[in-house]
Amino acid sequence: MLTMSGTSVKHLGGYPLGVVVNLDGKLGRKPSLDRLSELVADDIKAVNALIVRHMDSPVDMIPQLAGHIIAAGGKRLRPMLTLAAARMCGYQGSRHLGLAAAVEFIHTATLLHDDVVDESDLRRGLASANTVWGNKASVLVGDFLFSRSFQLMVEDGSLEVLDILSSASAVIAEGEVMQLITTNDTDTGETAYLDVIKAKTAQLFAAACKIGAVVAERPKVEEDALDTYGMNLGIAFQIIDDVLDYSAKQATLGKTIGDDFKEGKISLPVILAFHRGSDDDRTFWRRTLEDLDQAEGDLDHAIQLMEKHAALKDSVERARHYGAMARDALGIFAESPQKKAFIELIDFCIERAY
Amino acid sequence: MLTMSGTSVKHLGGYPLGVVVNLDGKLGRKPSLDRLSELVADDIKAVNALIVRHMDSPVDMIPQLAGHIIAAGGKRLRPMLTLAAARMCGYQGSRHLGLAAAVEFIHTATLLHDDVVDESDLRRGLASANTVWGNKASVLVGDFLFSRSFQLMVEDGSLEVLDILSSASAVIAEGEVMQLITTNDTDTGETAYLDVIKAKTAQLFAAACKIGAVVAERPKVEEDALDTYGMNLGIAFQIIDDVLDYSAKQATLGKTIGDDFKEGKISLPVILAFHRGSDDDRTFWRRTLEDLDQAEGDLDHAIQLMEKHAALKDSVERARHYGAMARDALGIFAESPQKKAFIELIDFCIERAY
Repeated sequence: MLTMSGTSVKHLGGYPLGVVVNLDGKLGRKPSLDRLSELVADDIKAVNALIVRHMDSPVDMIPQLAGHIIAAGGKRLRPMLTLAAARMCGYQGSRHLGLAAAVEFIHTATLLHDDVVDESDLRRGLASANTVWGNKASVLVGDFLFSRSFQLMVEDGSLEVLDILSSASAVIAEGEVMQLITTNDTDTGETAYLDVIKAKTAQLFAAACKIGAVVAERPKVEEDALDTYGMNLGIAFQIIDDVLDYSAKQATLGKTIGDDFKEGKISLPVILAFHRGSDDDRTFWRRTLEDLDQAEGDLDHAIQLMEKHAALKDSVERARHYGAMARDALGIFAESPQKKAFIELIDFCIERAY
Repeated sequence: MLTMSGTSVKHLGGYPLGVVVNLDGKLGRKPSLDRLSELVADDIKAVNALIVRHMDSPVDMIPQLAGHIIAAGGKRLRPMLTLAAARMCGYQGSRHLGLAAAVEFIHTATLLHDDVVDESDLRRGLASANTVWGNKASVLVGDFLFSRSFQLMVEDGSLEVLDILSSASAVIAEGEVMQLITTNDTDTGETAYLDVIKAKTAQLFAAACKIGAVVAERPKVEEDALDTYGMNLGIAFQIIDDVLDYSAKQATLGKTIGDDFKEGKISLPVILAFHRGSDDDRTFWRRTLEDLDQAEGDLDHAIQLMEKHAALKDSVERARHYGAMARDALGIFAESPQKKAFIELIDFCIERAY
């Protein structure tokens, strides 16, 4: 289990800042993506080259728009999962490169369609593709990347991988539709929320990890372990993403917060604050999130209610639970640099909340 | 070659009406889809069952929306191509059923995404799925059906089929983006128009036909012949579709016309009328299609200009050219009920212009 070294925890408006995580005493620094990035540095270069090659098209607008979203500073988290999982499983070949690119294409296609859906103005701090090129172009280039992703898998030739990733894609779409239905519905409970984020986010994390074991031709137990790791990592990742959208620290760093609030997205912090709140609180949540009748100061009030009911802090606690499951799933693998990086990745996903 | 029996051709405002086609003297009736539909009747029932089963989801909105568009899709033309092609190639199994369903899912996903309205241009006509469920749901359910289509192919297990259909999907998306770029651009010429319709429409016709030969494990020459048949059939089909959008007869039947005009789509009738027109004509086309500055009577004037320059009649002639190529591509196949139906299908696609 993760423990925090008490002395380094500072609270500001309910937020512990500058946490130094103590991973069984092994990690004296703030967890980061650096270890993982370094491990897969060469592979990710090859993946980037594949991405550039496969997003090309005689129709100029396609590489322009696709390049915009792919270059926009994606962490390449999902393809890194595939790359590191394959290496952790002892894989020495190069099939994982094309599959990692396929995973990133699915993710990018989803982002493009998600931006249209959410009518967002910003993606990773840049103008979202739909504001520059229009909704329709975003949808179509998303379709193009999605098709390219399947072409990459077909090139690889593994029906098992095709099965895993086509199933994941269908589940992602289901998750997005579920999210559409739960948006603006304050009756949404924690279970429904979990169903949504498992489908729309965690399923691709799970698939990305699992195919690492598949290319390495490892036994089913290892496929399952990586699947479980990815699924729980993805859940934790999404919970923290949802916490960050109400984070005072994000706001002080100049990052946009309150997008979910503006849309009326029913995320875990909202669900906890709603369930723990008074009748007056619930009237507030219904007005702002169901009716989208929002005035200046409402976002601040929402954050105050969340702090009052420890909704953000306890959302992070929930994320820790899934992080712990992810960590234990790795138990069957021998120690390796990749395994260490995967464990630090859990901590990174959670600790970025602070 | 198709010939028209001169006595039965009646002209009304440039439109020959009530044409009885004389196919080498073999067909004394108006060509229809009936022969093809009867030939694949049992297979199409099985395909419909597969479609219903595979569009199911615990997320109710998905089968609701998908069912709406799939039921409205009607003719099942593309899956019928796969079914009849497989049978023409002597195939006795049942793999063609799942693949025909996959083809219909790709088509339906494309329809849903094609109807996405750009917020920046709300003049575009709304499709019914959008009207009932909104843009958001249409994009996501399209993604779901697209994923399901790949799951059906993966179930089938042929990497060759996966290659054909994933490549076709990428080309369709490219075609849709090309169409987006050429819309409102009266500089678009016939070659660019052909590139667009080959990609967005004909490629799926070609793929649907070709996989019939693939499941039947026929030699490459037959795959290629069916590919050529489908490609040219698809081109003819789309040209006629574009003609129908300016058809006085469609209008008298109470069907909507003028959607392409309203959007500023640069279709073949427009291109011919533009290239054959006067400077005044071109000023009209630029105002209405580029600037989308349209007033009452403009659509009528557009049709008048097309009639004056024989743009509709000659678009149909162009379609006949592709129909002839489709017909000749079938030359290598022995006579069969399916081959007869495929030839009548060419005539049906073209003669529905009247």
